[in-house]
Amino acid sequence: MEIDFQKGSGLVPAIIQDERSGGVLMLGFMNAESFAETQRTGEVVFFSRSRNKLWKKGESSGHVLKVREIRVDCDSDSLLVRVEAVGPGVCHEGYRSCFFRKLEADGGTRIIAERTFEPEKVYGRRNFNEPAKAGNSERQPAGSDA
Amino acid sequence: MEIDFQKGSGLVPAIIQDERSGGVLMLGFMNAESFAETQRTGEVVFFSRSRNKLWKKGESSGHVLKVREIRVDCDSDSLLVRVEAVGPGVCHEGYRSCFFRKLEADGGTRIIAERTFEPEKVYGRRNFNEPAKAGNSERQPAGSDA
Repeated sequence: MEIDFQKGSGLVPAIIQDERSGGVLMLGFMNAESFAETQRTGEVVFFSRSRNKLWKKGESSGHVLKVREIRVDCDSDSLLVRVEAVGPGVCHEGYRSCFFRKLEADGGTRIIAERTFEPEKVYGRRNFNEPAKAGNSERQPAGSDA
Repeated sequence: MEIDFQKGSGLVPAIIQDERSGGVLMLGFMNAESFAETQRTGEVVFFSRSRNKLWKKGESSGHVLKVREIRVDCDSDSLLVRVEAVGPGVCHEGYRSCFFRKLEADGGTRIIAERTFEPEKVYGRRNFNEPAKAGNSERQPAGSDA
């Protein structure tokens, strides 16, 4: 089975889905090396586009993603990784899922989830009272992507 | 709310999730124009990387994706589109989900879903007895991406 890394210039999107609830937890990208590391270790390793290097999810927070199953799509250029997510949440903002906001009709967003942990206690930094702003990546901790 | 299209060179991944079952149906990419069209029409419009143009999902099959909710992740660079999927399936191979194969320990894949329709009847072409091979995009119909 060959994954098509070419179409995305060496990267494929990897959807992370909670195996038990079916909830979508996050999306990251993998290159061939991080995909191989994910398979070898049984825990999710992404490639961080912003830091241009491998990124073991949970390396700072301990919130690792244990791989239960990897599905591949018809074009072999997207992955669906079904996981057991260790810890209270995967998002560096303190939520179970990174998709904790919905778009509203007026163009704004609304938070639709409850915080499950305090990010400053996990990541050892403050400044996480607001959802991350696009392009403001320097204030994101090592637990963020990407 | 600004979507960060910059990080992905003008594109963001859009996960398509069945609103009722929670199943992940497919993943496509959107540029700013296709995202605006999706919001305007209430049906999913992708940007096809292989054809380099907007791609209204269901334009040939009728299997459109009616948008029920759009969620955005913490970095504002990935979308989770929760939909009502019209028709028996979204995949041009004849399955409900494009993620109908799982990776096996030996490196192969195994089909884990039942076909829900005959693609040649929907797309008017044959040659769909095998899952698509990576890099063999010329035999894929208009219903495929991406």
